[in-house]
Amino acid sequence: MTSYNKLISAINDKQSILCVGLDSDMNKIPTNIFTKNIEGLFDFNKTIIENTKQFASAYKINFAFYEQYGSDGFNLINDTLKLIPNDIFTIADAKRGDIGNTSYAYAKSVFEQMNFDSITLNPYMGMDSISPFLEDKSKMIFVLALTSNPGSNDFQRLISDSKPIYQHIIEKTINTFDVENVGFVIGATHPSELAATRKIIPNNVVLIPGVGQQGGDISAIIKANNNNPALINVSRSIIYPDKTNDFPNNIKELALFYRNAFNVLFTMLFIVIIGLVL
Amino acid sequence: MTSYNKLISAINDKQSILCVGLDSDMNKIPTNIFTKNIEGLFDFNKTIIENTKQFASAYKINFAFYEQYGSDGFNLINDTLKLIPNDIFTIADAKRGDIGNTSYAYAKSVFEQMNFDSITLNPYMGMDSISPFLEDKSKMIFVLALTSNPGSNDFQRLISDSKPIYQHIIEKTINTFDVENVGFVIGATHPSELAATRKIIPNNVVLIPGVGQQGGDISAIIKANNNNPALINVSRSIIYPDKTNDFPNNIKELALFYRNAFNVLFTMLFIVIIGLVL
Repeated sequence: MTSYNKLISAINDKQSILCVGLDSDMNKIPTNIFTKNIEGLFDFNKTIIENTKQFASAYKINFAFYEQYGSDGFNLINDTLKLIPNDIFTIADAKRGDIGNTSYAYAKSVFEQMNFDSITLNPYMGMDSISPFLEDKSKMIFVLALTSNPGSNDFQRLISDSKPIYQHIIEKTINTFDVENVGFVIGATHPSELAATRKIIPNNVVLIPGVGQQGGDISAIIKANNNNPALINVSRSIIYPDKTNDFPNNIKELALFYRNAFNVLFTMLFIVIIGLVL
Repeated sequence: MTSYNKLISAINDKQSILCVGLDSDMNKIPTNIFTKNIEGLFDFNKTIIENTKQFASAYKINFAFYEQYGSDGFNLINDTLKLIPNDIFTIADAKRGDIGNTSYAYAKSVFEQMNFDSITLNPYMGMDSISPFLEDKSKMIFVLALTSNPGSNDFQRLISDSKPIYQHIIEKTINTFDVENVGFVIGATHPSELAATRKIIPNNVVLIPGVGQQGGDISAIIKANNNNPALINVSRSIIYPDKTNDFPNNIKELALFYRNAFNVLFTMLFIVIIGLVL
């Protein structure tokens, strides 16, 4: 089974487009429950996964938070992957991209050495920086288009030939590769751009970060996505709950809340559309 | 001493703008000398450093080649850094860049955990993805502008508002940060663009990859750089010599060759200019 098929199965089986982001940080984990070291972070990830796996179709591991602990952090990525059930999709949120022979080595690291289902890529260096990640046709990539942060206004929206740069990136990528295992990243903070982009790429999977802490509006983004294949990532707003008592249960409730919030809105949208049609 | 000062001192003391790229790969090291494992790669790096340190002002460690070996590779980065003399500048060629809180974690990894002097950054996500790396004012960054690979034509040269995207990136970066510890990456395969860019950023350090295997023309690039602060990186053409006998001496001769090639051309250019002036 390809990673793409695994993802679509997970979304359908769980009726969930929730991706939980494991931005695990020693300075943020509740130290009344977990020790402030690598073992504590492992226990933290274990608790998160055990209490969200019913509702999550994917887990996204943000490499920066692990690399800051050096090789111990790198080992923690591998140990965390072993905790994730086989039917849940995994994303190496590493934002890699380099000249061809270097990208090959990154692909080897993430796909062969670690066995992730997919990776996020920064496309600034062009198509030859991306193609090595598609050599293994069973894996998926998510190419950064329009990111969720304020800095996305600096270059991604510059207009060239009547189109923003992020649209050039999307079009060039789908024209070059034209495969279902190419996805894109579009931040939840840009619902109208997501809606416009969905007309160009209705079928490609879009990974949508920026809900929760970063302020993306759930109902706006669900409407903009128009029921196309997507994952909405939530990191800090699930894994670092405000309430400190009964941590495992809080995590579970938050994951359920987001899974349902995304579904309820799907349902509402469906009712509205049916209402308009009838 | 800041990393910037360390770099300028190294260039002056050694009369060298040579940066040696440690793109160390088990499948390419001479296995008649080194064992094909992490220990062999360490011995390989040790031999490279011992035989090039007289001529190199900087070493660039390409993270992909290490990450492909997982946490052992991550440890090898740290072990390799310990082999590099303190007066030689180090570059983490990691091409990182992410939303603010994630970039902070990457900065912590490369600057605090590993103690590199500098890092290469991919600016596509904007200024807030770069600023965390300048928090520690003693460190340097190299922002990708126009890279050496064919894919640099895909997006970096798109014209917006009469200027290519890479020029937007350079201008926005120097207008936002305006500090000497901001450098840029411009590939050796683009001498005329380097010459034009040098008028905008005469004083910022430019890291120039793409000489050797990638086909950049040394004399064209030296002329284009116009004696401004720079490092020219050579990786494969030094560390993987064609000749297989007397490996350490071959490495040494190649490093000397490139150091001098860059200097001879400086000198020739100087003579030509003096000739024109007189």
